[in-house]
Amino acid sequence: MGNWEANVRRVVPYTPGEQPKQKNIIKLNTNENPYPPAAGVREALNGITDDNMRKYPDPTADILVSKIAEKYNVSKEEVFVGVGSDDVLAMSFLTFFNSDKPILFPDITYSFYDVWADLFRIPYTTRPLDDEFNIVPADYICDNGGIIFPNPNAPTGVEMGQDSIEEIVSKNRDVVVIVDEAYVDFGAKSALPLTKKYDNLLVVQTFSKSRSMAGARIGFAIGDKKLIRFLNDVKFSFNSYTMNAPSLYAGVAALDDEAYFKKTVDMIVNTRERSKTRLSELGFSFADSMSNFIFAKHESANAKDIFAALKENGIFVRYFDKPRIDNYLRITIGTDDEMDKLFEFLEGYLK
Amino acid sequence: MGNWEANVRRVVPYTPGEQPKQKNIIKLNTNENPYPPAAGVREALNGITDDNMRKYPDPTADILVSKIAEKYNVSKEEVFVGVGSDDVLAMSFLTFFNSDKPILFPDITYSFYDVWADLFRIPYTTRPLDDEFNIVPADYICDNGGIIFPNPNAPTGVEMGQDSIEEIVSKNRDVVVIVDEAYVDFGAKSALPLTKKYDNLLVVQTFSKSRSMAGARIGFAIGDKKLIRFLNDVKFSFNSYTMNAPSLYAGVAALDDEAYFKKTVDMIVNTRERSKTRLSELGFSFADSMSNFIFAKHESANAKDIFAALKENGIFVRYFDKPRIDNYLRITIGTDDEMDKLFEFLEGYLK
Repeated sequence: MGNWEANVRRVVPYTPGEQPKQKNIIKLNTNENPYPPAAGVREALNGITDDNMRKYPDPTADILVSKIAEKYNVSKEEVFVGVGSDDVLAMSFLTFFNSDKPILFPDITYSFYDVWADLFRIPYTTRPLDDEFNIVPADYICDNGGIIFPNPNAPTGVEMGQDSIEEIVSKNRDVVVIVDEAYVDFGAKSALPLTKKYDNLLVVQTFSKSRSMAGARIGFAIGDKKLIRFLNDVKFSFNSYTMNAPSLYAGVAALDDEAYFKKTVDMIVNTRERSKTRLSELGFSFADSMSNFIFAKHESANAKDIFAALKENGIFVRYFDKPRIDNYLRITIGTDDEMDKLFEFLEGYLK
Repeated sequence: MGNWEANVRRVVPYTPGEQPKQKNIIKLNTNENPYPPAAGVREALNGITDDNMRKYPDPTADILVSKIAEKYNVSKEEVFVGVGSDDVLAMSFLTFFNSDKPILFPDITYSFYDVWADLFRIPYTTRPLDDEFNIVPADYICDNGGIIFPNPNAPTGVEMGQDSIEEIVSKNRDVVVIVDEAYVDFGAKSALPLTKKYDNLLVVQTFSKSRSMAGARIGFAIGDKKLIRFLNDVKFSFNSYTMNAPSLYAGVAALDDEAYFKKTVDMIVNTRERSKTRLSELGFSFADSMSNFIFAKHESANAKDIFAALKENGIFVRYFDKPRIDNYLRITIGTDDEMDKLFEFLEGYLK
């Protein structure tokens, strides 16, 4: 036995939400969309040819990049695509966060940020959310190595106003600021217009939530041409061909059906608002979510117990055993029918 | 304008082979397989459900990992999968090559190795191939931070014997040795059996060449359970869900059709051997390739000129403008018909 383990990069990996294999469960634990992808996605998969599979995909992912550029009214040179927004964010950490100064992100946020920082040996400092789970912009006006936060924030669902975002971006011109908009389509305002004004702002979005395409692994970033060029240099130093043929064609098809996108997003928003009412009636409180989930705690029942009871009854939600949020449940918005079953169970359980 | 560029990771990215968009070309430049994937791949894509696309894929990629384990007679815990072997190799560099001592690889080899080393700031030293393009095992018996080489080597196609591989692996138990077997299925012997004996050996393979699946982006590594666990820890610290639903199902289908795999590999090997004869007759010389390409130089004509003339006539091969190999062409083995057209052109051109 040799000593090769001495040179292994030791990390504590991110733990993704459970993907249970049993049937007939209600899955409200990983913020997936309860509705199928646009019908064109099915057609796109059927249209994949032997040649598409046999040959390397276009390394520039041009058909998908062009479609995103068209949809968001930017040039192709302002668009980067990756294997889900996690891939886009990992590449962004690797590309932009190379200072000796710590990067900043909220104490309660997407739990992958500190994992990427640890993986790439990037120093970081967290800034506490206030008691209503708001990000405090003033906390980010200081010497730092870069800034990242989701908007709406995860797992709280709370939206930060555009003025606050612009304040953070404009007062941090010496570092890259990443706004992770995985959930922005469910009613929050995107920072995309600010990318025209600030070359240090990168906005990241995903097809996994609002476009019902978590299984396709498509994420993208929009920002100044120079930012995107640096990002592509690193991507092409890591893996030339990240986007496979099915994801390229399926992604284009999803973007082509704007009407379906709007319809299903509206349905989820309506179900979310109805769910807020029902959860309040059941004794839950929560910050006002602008995402496809609600982060709630109960006035008397313990979150971990509710989580376990739900799971035992085939209803999966997400529970984070972490400081400040260990009495909360993150409940993904499913169909009306799924939510009714959740409320029915909770009504009995909490009685 | 701020100073954010100061903290950007600057790299010189790998340049992938051209993916020309015009029709009716003969594409012998990126070592793709000229035959379609197994028929089951088509069926697998047709079988992808809305639910497969809507939900996150299994982060452990269990169906694909299990099938690879079964096929190669190892346990699931000895298998790692990624978005093409480039993704597997990038993750491996990041995971295993963290010494202050330089890693070692041949001076003439896959041109991504130095790109990954630069990306991750890994020191490296190259070891020259001998004049017949053989790797010299003795050059790798020394203090180092890790070792990687392809077998057969790229772009030479030359196979290293198992004894030499075992010598390198056994005399370097303090570092991880990676054997990159992208081309092994075309007649070379795999080092896979050695993984049972040496816990510091990682063998990497791909679906892109012998299984006609470059468009699906599937690569895998086999090695000791401990190696694979470390690799998965890093992967789960980078992107939990790298393998999308289509690649998981298409990958399984490709592995299920062993007869087709053997048949098409045999066809390519037969065409390769016939091509060696014709190329010799045309005045080319080359080391004996065990891959799906031939790396050849002509007795009088200049490689760069032949490359340009071929391209102008719609025949794409690969040319590397690098020391020691700048008078060589790397010619992927196509169908018999494609190769005949190449030879026909060369016959006229070289007259």
